[in-house]
Amino acid sequence: MRMYDIIEKKKHAKKLSTEEIQFFVNGYAQGEIPDYQVSALLMAICLNGMDEEETLTLTLSMAKSGEMLDLSAINGIKVDKHSTGGVGDKTSMIVTPMVASLGIPVAKMSGRGLGHTGGTIDKLESFTGFNTSLSEETFINNVNTIKIAIAGQTKNLAPADKKLYLLRDVTATVDNVSLIAGSIMSKKIAAGSDKIVLDVKTGSGAFMRDEKDAINLAETMVKIGNGYGRETVAVVTDMNQPLGRNVGNILEVKEAIEALKGNGPADLMEVSYTLASQMVVLAEIAENEAEARKMLEETISSGKALAKFKEFVSAQGGDASLVDEVERFEEASIIEDVVAERSGYINKIETEEIGIASLILGGGRENKDSVIDLSVGYVIDKKLGDYVEKGEKIATVYANDEAKKEQSVRRYLDALTIEDEKAEVPAIIKTVIRK
Amino acid sequence: MRMYDIIEKKKHAKKLSTEEIQFFVNGYAQGEIPDYQVSALLMAICLNGMDEEETLTLTLSMAKSGEMLDLSAINGIKVDKHSTGGVGDKTSMIVTPMVASLGIPVAKMSGRGLGHTGGTIDKLESFTGFNTSLSEETFINNVNTIKIAIAGQTKNLAPADKKLYLLRDVTATVDNVSLIAGSIMSKKIAAGSDKIVLDVKTGSGAFMRDEKDAINLAETMVKIGNGYGRETVAVVTDMNQPLGRNVGNILEVKEAIEALKGNGPADLMEVSYTLASQMVVLAEIAENEAEARKMLEETISSGKALAKFKEFVSAQGGDASLVDEVERFEEASIIEDVVAERSGYINKIETEEIGIASLILGGGRENKDSVIDLSVGYVIDKKLGDYVEKGEKIATVYANDEAKKEQSVRRYLDALTIEDEKAEVPAIIKTVIRK
Repeated sequence: MRMYDIIEKKKHAKKLSTEEIQFFVNGYAQGEIPDYQVSALLMAICLNGMDEEETLTLTLSMAKSGEMLDLSAINGIKVDKHSTGGVGDKTSMIVTPMVASLGIPVAKMSGRGLGHTGGTIDKLESFTGFNTSLSEETFINNVNTIKIAIAGQTKNLAPADKKLYLLRDVTATVDNVSLIAGSIMSKKIAAGSDKIVLDVKTGSGAFMRDEKDAINLAETMVKIGNGYGRETVAVVTDMNQPLGRNVGNILEVKEAIEALKGNGPADLMEVSYTLASQMVVLAEIAENEAEARKMLEETISSGKALAKFKEFVSAQGGDASLVDEVERFEEASIIEDVVAERSGYINKIETEEIGIASLILGGGRENKDSVIDLSVGYVIDKKLGDYVEKGEKIATVYANDEAKKEQSVRRYLDALTIEDEKAEVPAIIKTVIRK
Repeated sequence: MRMYDIIEKKKHAKKLSTEEIQFFVNGYAQGEIPDYQVSALLMAICLNGMDEEETLTLTLSMAKSGEMLDLSAINGIKVDKHSTGGVGDKTSMIVTPMVASLGIPVAKMSGRGLGHTGGTIDKLESFTGFNTSLSEETFINNVNTIKIAIAGQTKNLAPADKKLYLLRDVTATVDNVSLIAGSIMSKKIAAGSDKIVLDVKTGSGAFMRDEKDAINLAETMVKIGNGYGRETVAVVTDMNQPLGRNVGNILEVKEAIEALKGNGPADLMEVSYTLASQMVVLAEIAENEAEARKMLEETISSGKALAKFKEFVSAQGGDASLVDEVERFEEASIIEDVVAERSGYINKIETEEIGIASLILGGGRENKDSVIDLSVGYVIDKKLGDYVEKGEKIATVYANDEAKKEQSVRRYLDALTIEDEKAEVPAIIKTVIRK
């Protein structure tokens, strides 16, 4: 088998065989096939596509290129949850303790964020002492005893995907649905859970700006998961404005704690309940979503979810007393109002720009060696559809550097479109996709 | 300017600007842009194409990436001749002395062959002492005094093309008309002639098997040449069977000598006269092709072309007495008849296979370090449309190794389709393309 012929075949829009896909994925992972041949193939895939079967084979080849986690030592149906990423997305910290408090095992591998804010494990490190580098034994033991563990992704999970992702990133071959879906699902499959719930974001703060593209991606991932026998459900949710009110690591932790205390904003709770309901149904703890939702609401009203969160933070070495004394979290040195520059309705938010405004404050990683400033970010008062008066407070900025704050706030304000006529506010849940 | 954005643009089938094309060609030639980005772009070009303007810019950028020969010290209109390559193509050795004997300056840079047989300069090295490494001064001086010089291509002619060609060759990005035309024309333009005549081969022994593709390539190259102010004419000629009777280096030299003596086979003479006529007209020595042809026929019948050939061989240090004593050329140790395996009409020849049969004998280069056996090859008796009896001699094989001969003859015979009903023989000249 020659890589040349594989490239030639895809250039002519022909279907690649299982052997051909395995050949190039393994050959690339092992350094036997050079970058320049793989990038030519990636471009041919971008332009000529892959069908369902090719996409599944690609995903499995990448998943099997490294360690495949064996979670069989964990009792019960393990359900994983993954978000394609957005601004203000702190649902993992809300959903996982809710679900775990119902006895469903949550064994979650989470990446560090590269972008607007940190990832879930960056945020959890806001708790002094919190440890995300768990041994496999501790990881499995924690899930079996308290039903929840969240660890940083191990080095050797889907290494072929890691290498391909880096290459795609510099060769303009990112935006192909098979490659995106394969990248996400290879890691999910290698991470070993029995079932998977996906939160596919769409809108101005999402990778998939267009709702049709997001649905296409969601459908592709659901087919991959089910094709491998890992039942998968995808929820397509709105990212045309930040989710909830807080953007920034500690600010998001605080909002998640508030949510677990029953004080979460409506949009954040709606996404959290929807995702958690799917997990509960997949775990076969409830018959349907309505029943699941009732059970989940009860985990909040009873304080069970909050208690589970504290138990989880403690189990991984974190200072759980911070949950009840949130004022002890590190606080930014500059806290100032952001005010509207004109009167009218907030009709559009260039949400990615809000993420960049947070990144400018130091809240995210520009590159993999960046150190995140956990205390900075925004608390948002006015969202889509809200009427504001010129000079009225619309948000609070949390910063540690005057110049960065100036630059960030300018960016924040420029991200808003304020108009006289009120526009329609997009629905928060777009659709749920099952096999 | 970022290479990423250039790739992204072509992926979306958008037109690249002059600056963008120059950026990637120069950046690649200078080692500033990595292979993996260029191969992604090449694949996007293969699948989304380039328009006329982009193709011209690409060609000129590659031409200008190295030395641009200055032939202004040569008097008269310099006309170059280039063939896209085929089996048994020895027209350069016939056309150039004919044209030079009419006083037209021929300053030809020729590559070494990589494939079925050697290139023109490999063949000319059959003459003991023949030197193809001329200094620029000698090269120009020879053209001014005897009107003809043929030298090996200097190292630094269109280096960007050389690098891109090697990359295309391993990334399945060869077969795009803009890339092929750009590659050929960048070298022709850098080689400095005023006008260019192209022989674009089509058929079973040509890179462009399909006549429509060959015409498209010819048109593209003519547009490039004229677009840069180098008047260009392309003749599309048949390569559904070897040209003439002889295949192999010394065998082809002998046939060229016979042709110059007035004994060339009809197809070879037709192609030679057609190409030479275009050169004579472009050089403004004749008003039209009919007049040019008459002049050219006279160079053969009078012996002027043959005398010019000898003068040229001598001027570059070769033993020109071989022209009159061809029996002194090195001869193969095994000379055997090849006979028909069945009776009928030769209706098809897989011409590329005939080339490979010659390569197997040692007549061509498998890689750039191969040493060519100049004496081996075939003399063909029966060609398309000929009737043969089973057991009748159809060719003579010239070999130096019994096992290679066996393998080669098998390949030769398998390349023929012999049938009861006679099929139509393709025309030798397909079309002539001018601006």
